[in-house]
Amino acid sequence: MTPFKLTDELLANIKQLIENQKDSALESLLEEVHYADVAEIINELKSDEATYLIKLLESDKTSDVLTELDDDVREAILSNLSSKEIAEELDELDTDDAADIIAELPQEIVEEVISEIEDKEHAKDIVDLLRYDEDSAGGLMAKELVKVKDSWNVLACVKEMRAQAENVTRVHSIYVVDDEDKLMGRLSLKDLLTASTTALIKDVYIPKVDSVSVTEDSEEVAKIMSKYDLEAIPVIDEIGRLVGRITIDDIVDVIREEAEKDYQLAAGISQDVEADDSIWELTRARLPWLVLGLFGGAAAAVIMGNFEEMFQKYTVLFLFTPLIAAMAGNVGVQSSAIIVQGLANDDLKGSTRNRLFKEVLLALLNGIILAAILLIFTWFWKGSFLTALAISVSLIAVIVVAGFIGTFTPIFLHKRGIDPAIATGPFITTSNDIFGILIYFWIAKLILGI
Amino acid sequence: MTPFKLTDELLANIKQLIENQKDSALESLLEEVHYADVAEIINELKSDEATYLIKLLESDKTSDVLTELDDDVREAILSNLSSKEIAEELDELDTDDAADIIAELPQEIVEEVISEIEDKEHAKDIVDLLRYDEDSAGGLMAKELVKVKDSWNVLACVKEMRAQAENVTRVHSIYVVDDEDKLMGRLSLKDLLTASTTALIKDVYIPKVDSVSVTEDSEEVAKIMSKYDLEAIPVIDEIGRLVGRITIDDIVDVIREEAEKDYQLAAGISQDVEADDSIWELTRARLPWLVLGLFGGAAAAVIMGNFEEMFQKYTVLFLFTPLIAAMAGNVGVQSSAIIVQGLANDDLKGSTRNRLFKEVLLALLNGIILAAILLIFTWFWKGSFLTALAISVSLIAVIVVAGFIGTFTPIFLHKRGIDPAIATGPFITTSNDIFGILIYFWIAKLILGI
Repeated sequence: MTPFKLTDELLANIKQLIENQKDSALESLLEEVHYADVAEIINELKSDEATYLIKLLESDKTSDVLTELDDDVREAILSNLSSKEIAEELDELDTDDAADIIAELPQEIVEEVISEIEDKEHAKDIVDLLRYDEDSAGGLMAKELVKVKDSWNVLACVKEMRAQAENVTRVHSIYVVDDEDKLMGRLSLKDLLTASTTALIKDVYIPKVDSVSVTEDSEEVAKIMSKYDLEAIPVIDEIGRLVGRITIDDIVDVIREEAEKDYQLAAGISQDVEADDSIWELTRARLPWLVLGLFGGAAAAVIMGNFEEMFQKYTVLFLFTPLIAAMAGNVGVQSSAIIVQGLANDDLKGSTRNRLFKEVLLALLNGIILAAILLIFTWFWKGSFLTALAISVSLIAVIVVAGFIGTFTPIFLHKRGIDPAIATGPFITTSNDIFGILIYFWIAKLILGI
Repeated sequence: MTPFKLTDELLANIKQLIENQKDSALESLLEEVHYADVAEIINELKSDEATYLIKLLESDKTSDVLTELDDDVREAILSNLSSKEIAEELDELDTDDAADIIAELPQEIVEEVISEIEDKEHAKDIVDLLRYDEDSAGGLMAKELVKVKDSWNVLACVKEMRAQAENVTRVHSIYVVDDEDKLMGRLSLKDLLTASTTALIKDVYIPKVDSVSVTEDSEEVAKIMSKYDLEAIPVIDEIGRLVGRITIDDIVDVIREEAEKDYQLAAGISQDVEADDSIWELTRARLPWLVLGLFGGAAAAVIMGNFEEMFQKYTVLFLFTPLIAAMAGNVGVQSSAIIVQGLANDDLKGSTRNRLFKEVLLALLNGIILAAILLIFTWFWKGSFLTALAISVSLIAVIVVAGFIGTFTPIFLHKRGIDPAIATGPFITTSNDIFGILIYFWIAKLILGI
């Protein structure tokens, strides 16, 4: 397939058509466009243009488009719609998507919107989902699923499935429950296709099925589903009753968001922001880390101030302080990033002590190579072997300590139940800057015998 | 479900049982353990223990375990197996997993292993897959799929499906082809369940189906599947014939690996390494970036050397060089990370000029706030308002330039077709260090009138 590409021409064309209210031209233009692509178009429009276009689309497409929009664009459009209009869209959506949209609505209209939803069963399911934390299995799951009782036969099951399948976009598994709605097992579509119609479900179902508790953390659900290659997983409540199911496409979003969050933390951006957010939001996400860096730099300045007596004779030491700080920072980030990644993937083997030993050994190896290069450079540049040696040996010490801090900090935070990802980026560079400068001057002083 | 947890006790117990060759105890212990968890256990064993355990398992479980092992562990085990034993495992696997394993085997035994595969059709499919680049749709796809001809009726289709479904772990869609095997459309299981048995496929199938070309880049496939919420996508060759299908679980791996690669690049780690790789591999992935940082630091030292005449009177300027370098680096990484992420998600709106303007404005805003803090600190610490002012104003200039470089570099690289992710991390911090120090001394000199 040729993926849809939103060109400037197409966008200008659509804006023109909206301005001139050419409804039928717009309709035929967008008829063949996938809802995810329509959402991409609407994200680029002004609020009134976007609302105009949304009202023009057929209702079942509108609802899908709504789920794909950027949060701020959706908020703007929904504020232009009446409670009844919003309820009509929610009627078309799966319960999980509908609940996500309701959770974003202003508190004062939520009740009105829910009361306007025509399918009362659907409304009840949505309200039920609103109870759960958005980062839990309950917050991810949808109520739509196909379930059959273990006391039925295959024919009854196929009949019931046809009815239930109406509401379920994708049938992954058929879940088998007992009379109290407790999850007993599952039935694959393949089994159903090959079993005799008179066979009882309790004789053909698979009594083993993976499930997660409704309170399980969403990241844990993502790990389970991707480790065991599951495309859907049923969700059970405290007493084992089947209350919903989570599908792999929701997990793809969790994995992506989690990776983006870690990446941003490593870059010193503390909230989930995008390049197109407001300057104010971007500042709030970035400034705290910069202030941290500023304090770190000020601390380094104070430390260096204590070595001022060395200025006259050993000016060259001061020329290398940015290099020392940079190397301490880089090594620290490298070590911490690989530990954070190992922790996230649950694939760190061996004890903390072995881990530290290995990273320190690695840092020592890298440090010796780098120090050799620096020794030659400084010796040729400044002519003093002793000074060059002092700087190079200090560099090794700085790199080893930086590797140690970079390894130890995320492991320590993880053991304390704190997200180790915050230990990458500015946090580690700042602390390593300070320690690095201190160690550097201290060892140089020792070697030069000042 | 309680996720499986590999404890030290369990591992020690298993090692003990292997040493004492307690086969039946091992078998009953591992019988209920999922193959992904068995792989987790085997990853922790020594090569001979691992081989012993692999040979003990039932063949259909062994093959699944093999696909889940760490690359180096799998390599060690396979080198202990005969070509016939390897071929037996490949017979059990889906074609895509089998091809992945063959691609890792030493060249000299590949032909022998393939000739030992019993199911010749299966062997032919595997060989066919070996032709494709591993980062292309062809490299991701499996040959297993359910396809029917448009000239059949529903009954013939159900019959054929039952036969084909034997080889297909998960049936997502039924693909409809014409007599030349060209992809025409698809049939959902739901449609099949509800259609009359005598209806012709050409009258009930959906003539619209998304597909990707066999040469499509795997990241592009991941984008398409996650944008359009697809759980499987058919793959076609140059003339439109159906040659395979890609399922969402393979895409989950692509997304995860892509995110990890970007994260590592941001941290200055250039290959796909894990914490448990050898010290040599880890050094090769990290050292180049550290050498880059070293050269950057040396350049900064040379620049500072040119301002040595300012040492006597304005010592304090030199105390703040690590701070300046750190701030330039942090701001640069923040800006570049958010641009790289926007580029990866295809959601950067507006022109490059607007983008640069916004980032510069943001940097200016942050710079002014940070400079104000620094001004007060330095004034109180050193008592000279003019010096404090010179340092603070320089800091603003450094931050603005760092924001500009951090924004411009990834956009520029992306336009040139180079992965912008390399612009985060050490690359940006190093260049920003150099520019930062240069701008800092230059502006300070100007203000202090030296």
